[in-house]
Amino acid sequence: MKKVTIQYRVPYADTDQMQVVYYGNYLTYFERSRNELLREMGFSYKELEAMGCALPVKEAHVNYLLPAAYDDLLEITGWCEFFQGVRMKIRCEVRRNGQLLAEGYTLHATCDIKTMRPARPPQALRDAIAGQ
Amino acid sequence: MKKVTIQYRVPYADTDQMQVVYYGNYLTYFERSRNELLREMGFSYKELEAMGCALPVKEAHVNYLLPAAYDDLLEITGWCEFFQGVRMKIRCEVRRNGQLLAEGYTLHATCDIKTMRPARPPQALRDAIAGQ
Amino acid sequence: MKKVTIQYRVPYADTDQMQVVYYGNYLTYFERSRNELLREMGFSYKELEAMGCALPVKEAHVNYLLPAAYDDLLEITGWCEFFQGVRMKIRCEVRRNGQLLAEGYTLHATCDIKTMRPARPPQALRDAIAGQ
Amino acid sequence: MKKVTIQYRVPYADTDQMQVVYYGNYLTYFERSRNELLREMGFSYKELEAMGCALPVKEAHVNYLLPAAYDDLLEITGWCEFFQGVRMKIRCEVRRNGQLLAEGYTLHATCDIKTMRPARPPQALRDAIAGQ
Repeated sequence: MKKVTIQYRVPYADTDQMQVVYYGNYLTYFERSRNELLREMGFSYKELEAMGCALPVKEAHVNYLLPAAYDDLLEITGWCEFFQGVRMKIRCEVRRNGQLLAEGYTLHATCDIKTMRPARPPQALRDAIAGQ
Repeated sequence: MKKVTIQYRVPYADTDQMQVVYYGNYLTYFERSRNELLREMGFSYKELEAMGCALPVKEAHVNYLLPAAYDDLLEITGWCEFFQGVRMKIRCEVRRNGQLLAEGYTLHATCDIKTMRPARPPQALRDAIAGQ
Repeated sequence: MKKVTIQYRVPYADTDQMQVVYYGNYLTYFERSRNELLREMGFSYKELEAMGCALPVKEAHVNYLLPAAYDDLLEITGWCEFFQGVRMKIRCEVRRNGQLLAEGYTLHATCDIKTMRPARPPQALRDAIAGQ
Repeated sequence: MKKVTIQYRVPYADTDQMQVVYYGNYLTYFERSRNELLREMGFSYKELEAMGCALPVKEAHVNYLLPAAYDDLLEITGWCEFFQGVRMKIRCEVRRNGQLLAEGYTLHATCDIKTMRPARPPQALRDAIAGQ
């Protein structure tokens, strides 16, 4: 499966008083890599929405191994672990200088953006993923 | 003018590595008191939106006097400084045990929520504010 | 085990363009209830830190059932599922009018705040938890 | 004065239910450009802190002209408007495809990081700024 890695510089805004990145912010990091993963797979999430497809998160999980800190230049890697029917699982890893700091996943339902009910995604997306 | 004060407990999420509340979070504190101010004035912002009126922020200003910290129980006070035509200015103060930590304002345009262009707000809101 | 429920009003700041609460913000909601849970158990997290004990998050999990929206008055409930050796697991549920919207947990290591290495927590905390 | 421009891709996390970037997030955008401005001027903020110098924000101001949206690739430009004694003013502009969306400033005090009281910054920083 295609893996996409982005770089991200940690601002003060992301840290907390323990002088590390606040644990909730990793879910935004996951989103940042997911956005670029989808773009690389052929459709930005914005385009997917325009095609009538939304990918709400049904489940999120993070394992925290080592803390990230202010001004760290993180490498955030995302890839699609599986995509079956109306379920898509995206894995994500956060590293600094190659060292793994945190990893986890988000589980998504492919939904009709009007009803927000599960629906098969556009054929074009299925083809794009099958072609990875 | 009616003043509304809410209490707010600072979570770790709001702090940064200097062990104080991150400066950007005060604009969310302002919003929290604004929401309750509008509710007290007779219309929650959600109701205003349902009436076709939005209040986008055109200008925001904060003066930082003393830092707030984790677990502080803040008092956040908001009031409408003026409301003329399509402009509304809301002042806000953030205190801890009565001591002023930060203060500032947001300047809003009353807009038609469909076009997001300036528009006179619903008569009911004008009456409510005039009656303060 | 003692359960603590707090009320929380959702600001605009917490929503995203899908007009629901952004998925990452639930981890802050979990923290808000955790803070009050610890306080109810006899020690605010701030006091725990002053006693030399930190509770970094090693793992976080959220199941999203139904979306929360702007201006919702949420009920966030937290309780300690287990506490053994240097591991503490806190469960959390987010409801609106009693209806479950999201639930999950955080797994913590009790650490020495100076070294951030796992360490048995203060006896007073162990007694407090045993007494729940 | 040296101007530094960074690019920033807007995640869902930054948007609110009006489908635009939440107004408070612009202060984080300002910080992101400030960090790179300082780095370009010769000292990352992290290095400044290591030299015993902190730059807490005393005042922040934002004028909102046009909304930014999800997936926008923003250009955030920062520069030092003045630096006299213990005061430093940083201006910031946020653009999309060259069009100005928001602009404002932050006013900082140069402080001794131990006491957080105003103090002349390290000579090296003064020289670096004088040399811009």
